[in-house]
Amino acid sequence: MDYFSSNFKLGILGGGQLGKMLLTETQKFDIQTFVLDPSEEAPARFGCNFFYNDSFLEHDVVYEFGKLVDLLTVEIENVNLDALEKLESEGKLVYPSPKTLRIIQNKGRQKDFYVEHNIPTAPHRRFVDLYHIQKAVENNELEIPFVWKSAQGGYDGTGVKIVRSTLDLINLPDVECLAEALVPFKNELAVIVARNPKGEVKTYPVVEMEFHPEANQVEYVLCPARVSKKVSSKAQEVALQVSKAFNHVGLLAVEMFLTEDDEILVNEVAPRPHNSGHFSIEASYTSQFEQHLRAILDLPLGNPESKVAGVMVNLVGDENFSGPVVYQNIDKILAIDGVTPHIYGKRETRPFRKMGHVTIVNEDMKEARKIAEEVKNSIRVISKPVELEQETE
Amino acid sequence: MDYFSSNFKLGILGGGQLGKMLLTETQKFDIQTFVLDPSEEAPARFGCNFFYNDSFLEHDVVYEFGKLVDLLTVEIENVNLDALEKLESEGKLVYPSPKTLRIIQNKGRQKDFYVEHNIPTAPHRRFVDLYHIQKAVENNELEIPFVWKSAQGGYDGTGVKIVRSTLDLINLPDVECLAEALVPFKNELAVIVARNPKGEVKTYPVVEMEFHPEANQVEYVLCPARVSKKVSSKAQEVALQVSKAFNHVGLLAVEMFLTEDDEILVNEVAPRPHNSGHFSIEASYTSQFEQHLRAILDLPLGNPESKVAGVMVNLVGDENFSGPVVYQNIDKILAIDGVTPHIYGKRETRPFRKMGHVTIVNEDMKEARKIAEEVKNSIRVISKPVELEQETE
Repeated sequence: MDYFSSNFKLGILGGGQLGKMLLTETQKFDIQTFVLDPSEEAPARFGCNFFYNDSFLEHDVVYEFGKLVDLLTVEIENVNLDALEKLESEGKLVYPSPKTLRIIQNKGRQKDFYVEHNIPTAPHRRFVDLYHIQKAVENNELEIPFVWKSAQGGYDGTGVKIVRSTLDLINLPDVECLAEALVPFKNELAVIVARNPKGEVKTYPVVEMEFHPEANQVEYVLCPARVSKKVSSKAQEVALQVSKAFNHVGLLAVEMFLTEDDEILVNEVAPRPHNSGHFSIEASYTSQFEQHLRAILDLPLGNPESKVAGVMVNLVGDENFSGPVVYQNIDKILAIDGVTPHIYGKRETRPFRKMGHVTIVNEDMKEARKIAEEVKNSIRVISKPVELEQETE
Repeated sequence: MDYFSSNFKLGILGGGQLGKMLLTETQKFDIQTFVLDPSEEAPARFGCNFFYNDSFLEHDVVYEFGKLVDLLTVEIENVNLDALEKLESEGKLVYPSPKTLRIIQNKGRQKDFYVEHNIPTAPHRRFVDLYHIQKAVENNELEIPFVWKSAQGGYDGTGVKIVRSTLDLINLPDVECLAEALVPFKNELAVIVARNPKGEVKTYPVVEMEFHPEANQVEYVLCPARVSKKVSSKAQEVALQVSKAFNHVGLLAVEMFLTEDDEILVNEVAPRPHNSGHFSIEASYTSQFEQHLRAILDLPLGNPESKVAGVMVNLVGDENFSGPVVYQNIDKILAIDGVTPHIYGKRETRPFRKMGHVTIVNEDMKEARKIAEEVKNSIRVISKPVELEQETE
């Protein structure tokens, strides 16, 4: 199959920042792209060949969009799966497969899948609604504390609560959910595995998510993770096991806990390029976005190793600002060697909205980590004062 | 000034591959771009915010286009300078300045400029037309052999001829020209200098253009050049001297000869991202395209040093093929570690047309150079057989 400067058409469901960064690679290879996103202001609206401004949750929209292209991929899991299954049954190539997406979309089903495939994961129990989980606690079938997770729709830490007392149970939403054992862990790690339809597999180095000591937010993603060779080998092995279990095509980002006993437990997966792989644009021989493209197109996979150490800092909207975005002190961070901001192209900031990220690369991880802290403490994502806005508009 | 996700508008004259690769960086920073190019099929037609399909040689087109934007840059030198001068005189920011472009557009004027500024360059003499250069040879004022260069419009080696006998003189075009001493040289080198309006300057490592032993064509661009520390320091110094002499803003690629006596002679310059800097996308901390953007926007310049060694191979159309392009064996080169093809997005190949390039990076230059040869010998830019074309259309 010819992809390069040809009539081949790649469809992408979702036009967010992941779609936008994927388009950098389709442009590099001159592969025609069709993007579907409900937002007129989607970050990926430029850079694709055709932008369709409609919903990826509507069956008929996704089905008709899919018929326009030769191969479909996603940059978001929450899409209409019935349409994707219909397209796949009619012979359309869909990577990741709707079967995998269906397992992943429901966190309970996802956990069951790990258990069925002997993939290490924290013990869990599924509940159809709030009443049943409350009942289980009442009957001493479920011990407090535990981690409550909404089965569907959680994103970036929403849909997850630690239940430490029966009081915490009252305020939970009445949805399908699961209870997971609260396992003390030292580290959150992630490994991205790429697999193409031929079955070729490449595994990125293990990355470490470093959390803010107080706020429960990832502050830095570090590659390589500061763990022993033994731990990183084990983490890569587990990630490979997950990728094989799904018979996955494309990228699979596997998020894991490293317990206090150096055990690896799979937390959850994302079947696409992932925040934990953004460092790869600057640090790796093959960026995760190029790798995803190579994988779904059944091209040979690229070298996942790193040229230099990388640290990624998310740029999220300051909690006190909403409105037209301003990136304060961006010139200060640009003056530091090895610092690359990525601005996703969202015109409006909101508290904690993901507006961009900054990658810091250096031959020395310690130095990169130090600079990352400087970056984190310098740049602020705020909004324009209203007066200024009126002047310039 | 706010550039990131703001109302700031950058105009780019020319929508070729250089414009396209520049857009990767404007996208990364979410800077609004307007591109002007006469070809509907220009490689940069996607990736910009607004594409204007018109001539950059027409005064009124360039002038009106310039009025739409806040800052103008070029990805090609051969644009309407009267319009740029008018825009600049009216206060519009134009980088590189039309004054510099006017000097560079005429190779005779460019050479005079080097002499006036004590920049080492091969001795030359200017002639208004063919008659006068023939006359000078006749009168023994000009000794054969020498290098004949058309004063205007030469590109990628066209407009240059070595005159070895009076017979060679007969077939030359009747245009303004110059005669340059034929200096034996060991190497062709290039250095890219970035300078912002504040006067901050950064110099990329010296690269080496390796020529095919028989065909007079650059085969590989290597960074770093395989020359002594002394030679590379001298080359960087001369490049800096040229950048200062022009008071240049943006990138300036300075092409140089290294003579057999280890002297540096400036050949010519390009006031923009340049073929000799393509390696930087994969090999450098800051790619030449991001650096050009930082420079013209008066942002702090990025680190021009390399993470790894890089070799660049141009992908030019095979001399025996014309028509819809096919990249033969691209899957073979993708299977090699550290190999990244860039496909410019030209649908039709023609003999020697620049269709893309391939970058090879490696920790070891010898290994990179070896792989580059493998790449060069594998990939071919040909056209589809006519039958196949009919089938697929």
